[in-house]
Amino acid sequence: MQSGYSNGYGGGHTHSRRRSHRSATGGVYRVCSSTLSPPPTAPSTPSTTSYTHSNYTDTETAVASMWEGYDEAYFQSYANVGIHQEMIKDRIRTDTYKAAIMRHQNLISGKVVMDVGCGTGILSIFCAQAGASRVYAIEASDIAMQANEIVKENDLSDRITVIHSRVEEVEIEEKVDVIISEWMGYALLYETMLPSVIYARDKWLKPGGLILPSHAMLYMAPVTNSERYHETIDFWRNVYGINMSALIPLAKQCAFEEPVTETISGENVLTWPFMVKYIDCYTVTARELESITARYKLSAIMSAPLHGFAFWFEVEFNGPITFSSNNNMGFRFQHGTDNGSNHKKRRQSDTIVLSTAPEETPTHWQQTILYFYEPIDVRQDQIIEGSITISQSKENHRFLNVHLEYSTAGRSFVKESVMR
Amino acid sequence: MQSGYSNGYGGGHTHSRRRSHRSATGGVYRVCSSTLSPPPTAPSTPSTTSYTHSNYTDTETAVASMWEGYDEAYFQSYANVGIHQEMIKDRIRTDTYKAAIMRHQNLISGKVVMDVGCGTGILSIFCAQAGASRVYAIEASDIAMQANEIVKENDLSDRITVIHSRVEEVEIEEKVDVIISEWMGYALLYETMLPSVIYARDKWLKPGGLILPSHAMLYMAPVTNSERYHETIDFWRNVYGINMSALIPLAKQCAFEEPVTETISGENVLTWPFMVKYIDCYTVTARELESITARYKLSAIMSAPLHGFAFWFEVEFNGPITFSSNNNMGFRFQHGTDNGSNHKKRRQSDTIVLSTAPEETPTHWQQTILYFYEPIDVRQDQIIEGSITISQSKENHRFLNVHLEYSTAGRSFVKESVMR
Repeated sequence: MQSGYSNGYGGGHTHSRRRSHRSATGGVYRVCSSTLSPPPTAPSTPSTTSYTHSNYTDTETAVASMWEGYDEAYFQSYANVGIHQEMIKDRIRTDTYKAAIMRHQNLISGKVVMDVGCGTGILSIFCAQAGASRVYAIEASDIAMQANEIVKENDLSDRITVIHSRVEEVEIEEKVDVIISEWMGYALLYETMLPSVIYARDKWLKPGGLILPSHAMLYMAPVTNSERYHETIDFWRNVYGINMSALIPLAKQCAFEEPVTETISGENVLTWPFMVKYIDCYTVTARELESITARYKLSAIMSAPLHGFAFWFEVEFNGPITFSSNNNMGFRFQHGTDNGSNHKKRRQSDTIVLSTAPEETPTHWQQTILYFYEPIDVRQDQIIEGSITISQSKENHRFLNVHLEYSTAGRSFVKESVMR
Repeated sequence: MQSGYSNGYGGGHTHSRRRSHRSATGGVYRVCSSTLSPPPTAPSTPSTTSYTHSNYTDTETAVASMWEGYDEAYFQSYANVGIHQEMIKDRIRTDTYKAAIMRHQNLISGKVVMDVGCGTGILSIFCAQAGASRVYAIEASDIAMQANEIVKENDLSDRITVIHSRVEEVEIEEKVDVIISEWMGYALLYETMLPSVIYARDKWLKPGGLILPSHAMLYMAPVTNSERYHETIDFWRNVYGINMSALIPLAKQCAFEEPVTETISGENVLTWPFMVKYIDCYTVTARELESITARYKLSAIMSAPLHGFAFWFEVEFNGPITFSSNNNMGFRFQHGTDNGSNHKKRRQSDTIVLSTAPEETPTHWQQTILYFYEPIDVRQDQIIEGSITISQSKENHRFLNVHLEYSTAGRSFVKESVMR
């Protein structure tokens, strides 16, 4: 197991995006204010801001207020430089975005771009380098102040406008030709940032405009990981000659109750991957992301103990041409009812893809693993089937509830967990 | 830089002992209850228990109540199995304790032992294996329940009594011959657990009894770590060809405002180590640990940029014989006023030592580094001098305030920070 992308920034108490408190092996980022004042503490009771919710019921207003409190902590976690360094240093991520921008230079040069959640502004600067006439770089966290300084120091103030705001509250004078955003969280949907991109698309993108990335796919597969199970659970059977098995139930709960973020390899994967969700960023709605359910039926490609399920994602950077051609289907995934249709989709050979799959070079997203308390022995060709539901938590819309049903060899199980 | 001792237990929001939120590279442990109920949340406002503080002023009562709230979160962090696995898997730690118990078998066999903060009970079981007639295994966190199960499963219930309590509230029928405890935190004093051992010593240890470990030494030394500084700070000077130096002030604050826990090597150390504090566990008082100040004057053994100071500790496992012989001094450290006296003390060749020094095999304690925002170039033989004060935080007595003054080549600096 690789320990991933640790670096030297301090730990903290607030919600971090990619290396959250969920992280099994990685650090967390403490709050350090971009204004260089003493670090503020995250709100223990969510604060209510002055936004009006005149169309909401009282309950909806209360939930919205609570979420604003969580959002404040969420955005503040992005004021720590460490998280930005971790993302930028992930070359798979940054190189792929840069390549995608350069590939679509003809659609960016001389055009207006919006960067949703610009962070340090690196993608906005790439777009300016690709010839964008204007980039609106939107960032809700305090890192926006540094992004603005970076833009100035690189003499790009005439073309990049940093706006310190949630994208939902931005007011600009024009519509945009391109929306770019790096919105993906663990297991794609953790953080629930995509709805902000959808909001920006519906409000600010010109018809026929470009969205980067254009498509996203969430995958899952059963995995085997005896080494991990042995280290974490079997360890207690013999500790310096002492039988400490009494700790095993608690060890399972501590280690496996919630999804964990860690790097596995292609050799851990027990079946062909199953595509849980295919997202067309041009057409997806926020509502359809609130709860996603899919049924799967998979066949083991080897005999091994089944320890859990892994989740990962890929995003593609296709131009809008694939959106409007061929009856809106282009070469993209054809959703069907046969079992094969939710496997890896056909793809043009020159499509730019950012993949976080176990068989690819590890990224800072790693994979998200939902371990079972008990392994299940499966034989080659044995069927593993069931359903998966991933829904936004009512407790905090940036958390995910994961409801996994799985059956094999006549036994059925349910695993409920929360990515928080 | 080594990433240390990560393992597969989930992160969480509560105060963890050795892999706290301060940790730069390591994971944190989420709360998972030993009773296997849903994980409780740490108190956002410290709870007040029913203890009476009749001798306290109102302010003292308020502070005591607040600390009880912090203590609750502190103890709860030890209910996560991961932290115990991390400690047990640290072979330097566990092997040394086991060797020390076996070395003093003649003082343990047939005797009564108290294990302060027994965790899973492993040291209590080692003592039973060494022939202790009775071991009182005291543990305030809920892991006590599992410790009790482990004792039962190993047929040691007749000799080991697990008591789920803070040691300050324990009532037993007899005094003890031996106190054993693994109380050391980062930079020795983080966690402030030693006062509980002192309390147990004063209340329960027979005159002439044995304390393991018997002595502890906190060291510090100036360090150079260009690689770390380069990765964390200089990184921003050129990011994909973009000048992001505007982030450097914030990067310094995020990375270096507070002490960090990481593993360095002997090659990072710029002078002979300075002993900040020598603790004789037979005689030390809780009061003298509240604030420790020492003046140092050190000479660089090489020319290099000075990036900060490292802190680490050693503990020794001497028998009580060294306590009573030679006018209470034995072969132990002779405190003096010459500069040499705070360097490494003389030691008998067969003394059992648990060392967390940079030149030794890394432990889960790693080293604690206080980095400066600006490196200072020093030449070989250049003097670095000043003072260090480490005191318990009034905010949370388990945190430490660190006040470091340092002067070299005619320039003077002060660094204030908090280990939280």
